[in-house]
Amino acid sequence: MARVAYTTPEGRARRDQLVRAAMQAFAQRGYHGVTMDTIAAEVGVTRQGLLHHFPSKVDLLVAVLERRDEDDSELLSTLRAREDTPLAEILRAVLRHNAQRPGLAALFTILSAESVDPEHPAHDWFADRYRRGRILVAEWIAAEQARGRITSAATPQRLATSVLALLDGLQLQQQLEDEPLDIDGVLAELLALLR
Amino acid sequence: MARVAYTTPEGRARRDQLVRAAMQAFAQRGYHGVTMDTIAAEVGVTRQGLLHHFPSKVDLLVAVLERRDEDDSELLSTLRAREDTPLAEILRAVLRHNAQRPGLAALFTILSAESVDPEHPAHDWFADRYRRGRILVAEWIAAEQARGRITSAATPQRLATSVLALLDGLQLQQQLEDEPLDIDGVLAELLALLR
Repeated sequence: MARVAYTTPEGRARRDQLVRAAMQAFAQRGYHGVTMDTIAAEVGVTRQGLLHHFPSKVDLLVAVLERRDEDDSELLSTLRAREDTPLAEILRAVLRHNAQRPGLAALFTILSAESVDPEHPAHDWFADRYRRGRILVAEWIAAEQARGRITSAATPQRLATSVLALLDGLQLQQQLEDEPLDIDGVLAELLALLR
Repeated sequence: MARVAYTTPEGRARRDQLVRAAMQAFAQRGYHGVTMDTIAAEVGVTRQGLLHHFPSKVDLLVAVLERRDEDDSELLSTLRAREDTPLAEILRAVLRHNAQRPGLAALFTILSAESVDPEHPAHDWFADRYRRGRILVAEWIAAEQARGRITSAATPQRLATSVLALLDGLQLQQQLEDEPLDIDGVLAELLALLR
């Protein structure tokens, strides 16, 4: 995909503004529900001005996903810095992290759902993200088992699939509710039962 | 919402055709990603012909959700007919039911994600669906506890929230994967650990 080299702070600021507008628009209406014209109008640039930064809607989507990749790496380094942290606490940290970014969480709920379609431009990105996620969480679970904090009757790979599913499903239910669902309590109880 | 009275089999057949086209279109591109013109073209009717049956896109969405309600009631009566069925088996039946309708499952993944937006016309339907779902599953869990098949250390309401989250999250991961994820095995192991 074409990439514009930014030599001025103004260019970078405008690009950033467009990416943020795209994130907000995608979060509300999904990738397919948004047109380039809507995003251009939102930021107050001409269609031509938008196309200068992002030649296509796919380029905007890639920029959005790259931003999430950066955000993920930061979170992962924070989590990895504390090696002995119990899994329950890591998951709480992830949920807290997402709860502080409700727009981003809604964006990922809708983009991952749309991506179920193999033709969706983010399909491979999400499929790959879950594959890596399952491997990472399985490693955490195995470490917790070694420390005697999760029952050795669990298969790390299987439990990792469940844990990622739980995080997604709990966030979806919370996003649909006005009242807080006590996600922390739900997760803590389940993990306590798996000791 | 306006409702057309169908006096002819042709009218009913055409309506059914339109609902099925809407389900397929929404499943791929979401509610916001689809226009009335796309659906009319798909079925080969004029825009006016579509508007005769469904005056607005919201009316089409309502018809799609009503169809799901009917499908749900059928599934629930089947499940309720066997009162002593273990929870693991009920969940397997639900997953099997959905796996036999991959289009419908993808449709509900995307519509529920879009509905996180309080302005989405299906928001209340999904919020209500999850509230009723949590109550129903909590009752099943309490019954399983009474039979000694789920640990009494679990709170039915909390575990019900987890179980619904698991079903959604597991299906999302499966929908993103080409290879089968052994969802049955994942779920069976987790429930076995909760005995």
